Order: sequence, then structure tokens, then C-alpha cells
Amino acid sequence: MSFDPKDHPHRRFNPLTGDWVLVSPHRAKRPWQGQQEKTAPDNRPAHDPKCYLCPRNERIGGEKNPDYQKPYVFPNDFPALLSDTPDAEGFCEKERGELFKSDSARGTSRVICFSPDHSKTLPQLSVENIQLVVDTWAEQINDLGRDYNWVQVFENKGAAMGCSNPHPHGQIWATSFLPNEARKVDQSLKQWQENKGSNLLLDYALQESADGERTVAETENWIAVVPWWAAWPFETLLLPKFAVKHLPDLNDEQRNELAVILKQLTTRYDNLFNTSFPYSMGWHGAPRLQENTDHWQLHAHFYPPLLRSATVRKFMVGFEMLAESQRDLTPEQAAERLRNLPLEHYLNNSE
Amino acid sequence: MSFDPKDHPHRRFNPLTGDWVLVSPHRAKRPWQGQQEKTAPDNRPAHDPKCYLCPRNERIGGEKNPDYQKPYVFPNDFPALLSDTPDAEGFCEKERGELFKSDSARGTSRVICFSPDHSKTLPQLSVENIQLVVDTWAEQINDLGRDYNWVQVFENKGAAMGCSNPHPHGQIWATSFLPNEARKVDQSLKQWQENKGSNLLLDYALQESADGERTVAETENWIAVVPWWAAWPFETLLLPKFAVKHLPDLNDEQRNELAVILKQLTTRYDNLFNTSFPYSMGWHGAPRLQENTDHWQLHAHFYPPLLRSATVRKFMVGFEMLAESQRDLTPEQAAERLRNLPLEHYLNNSE
Ligand SMILES: O=P(O)(O)O[C@H]1O[C@H](CO)[C@@H](O)[C@H](O)[C@H]1O
Ligand SMILES: O=P(O)(O)O[C@H]1O[C@H](CO)[C@@H](O)[C@H](O)[C@H]1O
Repeated sequence: MSFDPKDHPHRRFNPLTGDWVLVSPHRAKRPWQGQQEKTAPDNRPAHDPKCYLCPRNERIGGEKNPDYQKPYVFPNDFPALLSDTPDAEGFCEKERGELFKSDSARGTSRVICFSPDHSKTLPQLSVENIQLVVDTWAEQINDLGRDYNWVQVFENKGAAMGCSNPHPHGQIWATSFLPNEARKVDQSLKQWQENKGSNLLLDYALQESADGERTVAETENWIAVVPWWAAWPFETLLLPKFAVKHLPDLNDEQRNELAVILKQLTTRYDNLFNTSFPYSMGWHGAPRLQENTDHWQLHAHFYPPLLRSATVRKFMVGFEMLAESQRDLTPEQAAERLRNLPLEHYLNNSE
Repeated sequence: MSFDPKDHPHRRFNPLTGDWVLVSPHRAKRPWQGQQEKTAPDNRPAHDPKCYLCPRNERIGGEKNPDYQKPYVFPNDFPALLSDTPDAEGFCEKERGELFKSDSARGTSRVICFSPDHSKTLPQLSVENIQLVVDTWAEQINDLGRDYNWVQVFENKGAAMGCSNPHPHGQIWATSFLPNEARKVDQSLKQWQENKGSNLLLDYALQESADGERTVAETENWIAVVPWWAAWPFETLLLPKFAVKHLPDLNDEQRNELAVILKQLTTRYDNLFNTSFPYSMGWHGAPRLQENTDHWQLHAHFYPPLLRSATVRKFMVGFEMLAESQRDLTPEQAAERLRNLPLEHYLNNSE
């Protein structure tokens, strides 16, 4: 019997985190009798009087949103981070020793409404309006990066991803510390540059572009792939094909093309199961207040939970939490399915 | 302003994985308008003719279960691992280089029914019957440990944790490789022993026992705590207070007491929100085919998703996936709530 990745369980290595993922492609055949996700209704009004993110409406905290026409940013009414918390380093370690280590955490949380239109999500916005979102992300990273080392831009989309409001929006959490995932990527990129004299993610983008087997969407300067080491069934990694450390460093043309590929990628996501595809996505760029960031390269991760249909997700539970992430189809199979989908949104109601 | 862990965001360090967790205790106040979980019905029949795990019934694969009276183990009909897959090491690396690393994965998956009684879950079984489950876990680890380095015993409980059948059952996945989480714990325990000459988890158990602030249940030989570094709201770590590397090494008395504390811990879980508390739990013990395991210590993790009520869970999404786990109450607050709950199950229908 000779090895066939489409049939035989195997593991793949994630060079960004140092973790492995178990690939069990033969397992896609098992029946599913478990939880079914709810899907979001396809037609929402352009303005919902009960939505706390719509223009002119009242927010949970009591404030009133302006009549915004472009992406609109405001402070999170229930921030997980505060700018003025006292030092917490070693607050328990002194009495109890090394197993009780702590660190200070300062930061801030903001919300960004992508559009005044309650009825649209990212793929349904025009390229121009997606570019306004890109510009706002860049502005925020610049602004918060003056005070904080890490600015995490992200979007939780869909009820399955803990999102409680379908109004198109994302979040920005800035932190004084380098969070776990950022620390791992920082180390991996640094080590690669020291060993090879090149950039891990730029090397990877160019190899994937030459190969094509894992490509979902590609423009002249950008590529979206289901990475070799994807854990979630339809996870993707969005990469520039040129060297760039931060979102704010992108020029106008590069931003425009980024808006194009964002629209393509998220449209294909929606078209996979003819549903508003849930995911968490976010940007990783060079830490803002760190001295040496020559090894950095901008990139975005999309982590969508769905596996078989609009209502059946992958559960990362038992074995995954205690041992190792496991996936039920190969990254190449996932990429092929996504790549073959049309670039027209299934609802045909894009701006 | 002086630092108060109950009010101020801070980070805590997990010495088993090397990761940090962001603690945002002030955030518990935010309102929740998102997804509501379904709860399992409280009264199920002792035998369900449609359940593929009940005695005498037909399984999905077509086989018929025996009329079992004690815990019953059978091969998973849709295993994520196979015992005879060909070597996969470097299958792509040769052509494409280091960013395309792979490894072989051999293994096997089994299912373990905890009881013939469809209507009961772990906390509702008698101590004697829970001990039979412990004995079966130990037997399986011994058996599979002859061929496989890692034997992951776990239970996914509840629809929120991807479990599709309420019949009390768990799983056993044995692997030729050391999975990510096991590799990290192995390294951490080893380093601690090299540096301190003692066992990290035994040191920790004794310190927590002396302290009591994070204790949820305790017997002479066992302790269950919400660990200093807990990520999930009501996560617990179950630890022996004596040196022991594997579940099979436990003697009869130690197993009996383990059954007692398992019943206490899972009863308190159910009593927290008067619901059959969902979780993924599992055992970590010394790798079976590794030479040096002197640094090992047996332990179990419980990862329950609920946060506020029987229907409102914590979502580990956006920031958590891209940056760092974040929790909304302190481990001490979680432990206090759990500790103060009665040891009688709220349904009052235990064996
Ligand atoms: O094997 P089950 O119970 O059908 O499946 C469940 O547990 C597995 C092991 O944690 C996961 O891989 C699956 O995603 C989950 O649905
Ligand atoms: O801030 P939100 O959208 O209310 O909350 C959501 O995103 C946060 C950041 O990923 C998570 O911590 C929450 O668990 C999730 O429900």
C-alpha cells in the first residue's frame, strides 16, 4: 500500500506555531447526528431600529450613534482591557512561588462598524467600501500602535462564532503585551530569518502561488490559500506576495487589490453552503513598539467553523483540546472546493 | 489605585503549556444577546430503542451491542486513526521543502459506554459504578499502551461539546505519535524536574491543597481545583496528592477515592446551573513507550464551555483564536461558586 494523502491519516506541521495537525481524510464519511447551527436570515433591512450598531440608534451603553456613512469606530462598551490598570506582575508569585506567575495587562477595545447598511456583510459591500474598511483598520493600527505593542484587528462573524449582532462589524483590541499567538509567530519568523536569511511567509506565499493546489483566490499581489497546516476545515491564510510588515504600510493600489481579494474570498465562503459563512478572522502585523521587526510579514487568518453544510460545524473538542487538532478533509480538497465556486455572490444583492 | 485581581485585568501563566491567559473580571457584567445553547432533557428512559449505544441495540455500523451490564468498549465505527496507514513522513517535503513538513500517524479509536443505563451521566452513577469506569480506563490504557505511545482517554459531554448522543460514554484515541498537548506537558514537567528536582504537578497539588482558594473538591488523596491559569470559566484540574505516573498504576483504594471525587466534582458541575453540565474531559498520563518518564504525574482536565447559565457559553473566538485566551471571572471566583454547591445531585435520582 503506498501513501495517499487523500485516503490516509497523517500529520502536518504548522511552522508559525510549532504545532501539528492530524489529517483524517477518510473520516468525512461518518454520519452526523449532533448539534445543528442556526443560520442567519438572508434578508435583513438596511436599517434596523433595534440594532445598537445602526446609524442614529442608541447603543447598549446609552450613547447614540452618529449618522455615519463610512466605517465607524467607537470604544467597546464592555472592554476586556482597560488603559489604566495597576501593575499585576508577580502579585501572587511573591507569596506562593513560580507556579503562580502573573503579568500586567493594559489595553483598549474598540468596535468598528464596516458599513451603515445593516443588511450587508463584507462580501456584499462594493470594492470601494471594502477599501474604506481596510483604510480604517490601517488608521486604527497606526493610532493605537503609538501606545500599545500589539493591535489585534478581528471580526467574529455569525452566531456560531459568538457574534450577537448581524450588523457588519469587527473589533480592535490593543494590548501592552504580546499575546501568545503573536509571540509564537514572532519567534518563528525570527528564527526562519536567522536560519535562511529570508521571510518565512513571503517564501511560503511564493511557493503556494507557484504550486496552486491550495489556492482559493489570487490577484497580482495577494494570495489566499488553505494552508498546508490548516486546522479548521475551510481555514485560509491571506498573504501579500511582496514584503510588507504592517497594514498601514500598504499603498493605495495594494489596498485596493486587498479589497478585491477580500471580496473574492468571502464571496466564495458564502457560496460554499449558500449561507452567510461564519468565521473569526484577523490580522497579524509586526508588533508596534518592538525594536527588531525585520523578520515580520503582514498576514490574515480566517477560521471558519463549518464542515459539512450551513448547519453542521466542526467541533474542536475532546481529542482536539486535550491532544491535537484534527481535520476531516485535506487542505487541498478544501481549497479545490472553494476555488471552483463562482465570484458572484449567491444572493445577487451586492453593492 | 492598588491592584485587585477581582477588579483589574491581568494575565496568568500556564506552566504546563507555556501560554498566558488574559483575566478580565470586570467584564462579567456585560449583557448577552448572542447564541443560546440547547439543554438536554432531564428525564430520559433507562433504555432507548433508538440509541445506538444502549445494550442490545444496533450500532450505526450495523453491529449489535451485547446485553452489557458493566462499562462496554468497542471500536469506533468512524475512527480518525487507523492502525495500518503507510508512512507519511516528508511525503511533500522532498519536492517542496521545509514549509511542507509531514509525519506519519498510526492509531486506533474506541468508544466506551460508561453504563448500560441510558438515563444516567457520570455524577448520577454510584461510586461503585464510577469505579468500574476508572478500571476500564486503566485497562484500556494498559492494553493500547503496548502498541501506542499515547493513549488519550476523554469524554465529550453535551451537544455544546459536539456530542451527538446523551448515552453516558467516552472515547479512547491511541496514537503512535505524541500529540501537541502531550508534547508540551512532557517538556514542561521534564524541565521542572531538571531545574527543581521535584514534580511540577505534585508541587502544585500540595500548594493548592494548603491554600484552598481554588479548591472545588478534595479527598485525602485527590484534589480538584480551578487552576491558577484556567482559560475556560469553570475549567478544573484533577490531581493526585501522591506521586503516580499512569492511571493503571492506581491501587484499588486510590481508584475508589478517585471515583468519589469524580462524583463530587461532576455533581457540583451539574448543580451550578441545574443542568447536565457539558464539558470535554480527559486524562494525561506518562507516554507509554517513552524511555524517561520520571518527571510525569497523572492528571485530568475538565474544559466546560458554560459561562453564565445553562444556555449561555463562553466563545473562544476572535481575540482568543488570534491572540490569547480570555476569561471573564477569576479562577478564585469560579472555584468559590463551585465549592459552595451541595454534593447532592439537583435531580435527586442518582444510583
Ligand atoms: O467522535 P465523535 O464523538 O463523533 O466526534 C466528536 O469528538 C471528536 C474528538 O474530540 C471530534 O473530532 C469531533 O469533531 C466531535 O464532533
Ligand atoms: O466582544 P463580543 O463580540 O461581545 O464577544 C465575543 O468576542 C470576544 C473576543 O473574541 C470573546 O471574548 C467573547 O467570548 C465573544 O462572545
